[in-house]
Amino acid sequence: MHDSRVQALDGLLEEAGLDAVLATKDASIAYLTGFWGLQLERFFGVVVRRGGDGALIAPTLDRDSVEAAPTGLEKALYDAAQTNGLATLVERLGDARRVGVEEDHLNFARAGALTEAGYELVPATELVMHLRAAKDAQEVEAVRRACRQIEAAYDELWATLKVGDTEAETNARVAYMLARRGATHSEPHILFGEHAAQGHGSPGERELREGDVVVADIAAQFDGYWGDLTRCAHAGPPTDWARRAWDVVYEAYNAAVAATRVGNTCRDVDAAQRAIVEAHPEIGACLHGAGHAIGTEVHEPPYLIASSDEPLREGMIFTVEPGIYHSRRGGIRLEDDVLVGPEGPVLLSSHPLELREL
Amino acid sequence: MHDSRVQALDGLLEEAGLDAVLATKDASIAYLTGFWGLQLERFFGVVVRRGGDGALIAPTLDRDSVEAAPTGLEKALYDAAQTNGLATLVERLGDARRVGVEEDHLNFARAGALTEAGYELVPATELVMHLRAAKDAQEVEAVRRACRQIEAAYDELWATLKVGDTEAETNARVAYMLARRGATHSEPHILFGEHAAQGHGSPGERELREGDVVVADIAAQFDGYWGDLTRCAHAGPPTDWARRAWDVVYEAYNAAVAATRVGNTCRDVDAAQRAIVEAHPEIGACLHGAGHAIGTEVHEPPYLIASSDEPLREGMIFTVEPGIYHSRRGGIRLEDDVLVGPEGPVLLSSHPLELREL
Repeated sequence: MHDSRVQALDGLLEEAGLDAVLATKDASIAYLTGFWGLQLERFFGVVVRRGGDGALIAPTLDRDSVEAAPTGLEKALYDAAQTNGLATLVERLGDARRVGVEEDHLNFARAGALTEAGYELVPATELVMHLRAAKDAQEVEAVRRACRQIEAAYDELWATLKVGDTEAETNARVAYMLARRGATHSEPHILFGEHAAQGHGSPGERELREGDVVVADIAAQFDGYWGDLTRCAHAGPPTDWARRAWDVVYEAYNAAVAATRVGNTCRDVDAAQRAIVEAHPEIGACLHGAGHAIGTEVHEPPYLIASSDEPLREGMIFTVEPGIYHSRRGGIRLEDDVLVGPEGPVLLSSHPLELREL
Repeated sequence: MHDSRVQALDGLLEEAGLDAVLATKDASIAYLTGFWGLQLERFFGVVVRRGGDGALIAPTLDRDSVEAAPTGLEKALYDAAQTNGLATLVERLGDARRVGVEEDHLNFARAGALTEAGYELVPATELVMHLRAAKDAQEVEAVRRACRQIEAAYDELWATLKVGDTEAETNARVAYMLARRGATHSEPHILFGEHAAQGHGSPGERELREGDVVVADIAAQFDGYWGDLTRCAHAGPPTDWARRAWDVVYEAYNAAVAATRVGNTCRDVDAAQRAIVEAHPEIGACLHGAGHAIGTEVHEPPYLIASSDEPLREGMIFTVEPGIYHSRRGGIRLEDDVLVGPEGPVLLSSHPLELREL
């Protein structure tokens, strides 16, 4: 499975005029080799040279997980106590000259060292992401499984959340639910009341009060793949504002999901939700795009934003997550993970869409 | 507090021949402005120009947390749905020409765009880290508080851990203990038996069995600052191997802590533990250096490794964490956070050092 991805990458090199590609993102390394490293300050990379040979390069500290990785590529280990791994990398790049790199990840220092070593570095994030963007059947199943685990966490959350709970405690509890189910990473982001108006607010000591909206955004990674959902609730009977906001977002959600199909661009999906949300300034503001691709990373390109004319392709998986935000009242957001299928959009999650009353 | 750090950075620019510095790491941005962003694919940065003016640059999505940030720098927001933030950045860099960047973080694409815009980029990680490395009194207290929270988690862990528990469940429980105490991030890394021989092994379905060693490495961030400790236990009476390994590591720990003082280099601290651990190949191998600096990042330079001749300075805080590893029997590691004080090493943690019997 992983080796066929390496072959597919190799198949793109000639047309791209590249002698090799160096992938450095954890998620790209995992995609190509099945190996998940712990990057921190040490160098990890996968080299794929034209012809399909190459290497997974990692510090000796990770020897056991490297050896267990299901890849046919050479496994090249270096001693991080003695070197920074660049000599090992240069040896594997060999006589390659034009080397594609993940330009949104490779850092300035390593790029400089490779340039000094005589390599011509060429941006190749698009090339790698072109492969990663169209998920194969196993990947679709992996995202679906992650969504199922998140849905189970929602069931536990809705059964236990009550007035007086703090955001911090609630998010900690959900992270625990997810970790117990086997999540390797989780990003619950559950906010209450006016705090939910902040797309990126940090959960804090805010307690849930009668009359609050609850925006529960839960992302988690299982077996290498992420799911990312958002559902909303209300402590006590929803206010008029909350009901109207929910209706607007539900309409925007349906329009954006329907637009997540071959023939449309990223902008089209964003426009579908934006037109509806922005038609209701009296309820709140449209603060972000329609969503992002998801897979081995929780946020991947392409992004469903107004400035992207990238066409949707079969196999892409996106979060579709319109929202509306009012600084004093809070926010409403609905999010599911949607596969661009041959016959149209396919929802990978099935948790009920409703403004749940707690 | 944050503005005095900006002033201190400004004070280094002339001698470094720089017109400005662009800091892009989350931890550097937080250090200079008190703002913690959620970086993902969007651009965040702090510009400090010679003379001390500058800006915190972030997407509009983070408006509320940016506005709350305790910095006197200008707050410049850009709409990530429309631009990638580079125009806003270039505007704030203004007529600066030589710009210091964090070369181990700024990516190849952004570096290329800045170079094309006419800036000469100069590696400045060392300059920023020179400031960040010597912690002020508030920072020392923050690390001490983080250690105290981790110690409380150990108390809970030792009171509840029992034969039959899985690594995954145990790590999830400790993460929950830490999150409930207010940790914004946590990295418990608790491994059992032969699995503990893997410095970077992933906690899995391995159950704790009678006769196992337990290596409990717990790192967590509170109020922006990390603590990072490791303690060991044994399920049932320790084997001879475990006792001997513990004695060796305890001796190495004491030697390395004593060496964590002004007048020594990073290599000296590593050599102090390495000489002792490597003298016992019949017990196991020395797989890593003596430790790393810690602060707003869990791993910061300088690193206590054989290849570093960086001198220790007052105010630096290091993890000191010697270990010994045997592929079939497991590992023993002891870790505390140590301040380089004016009178010598100061332990910032006080959890008992013992091979605890469960």
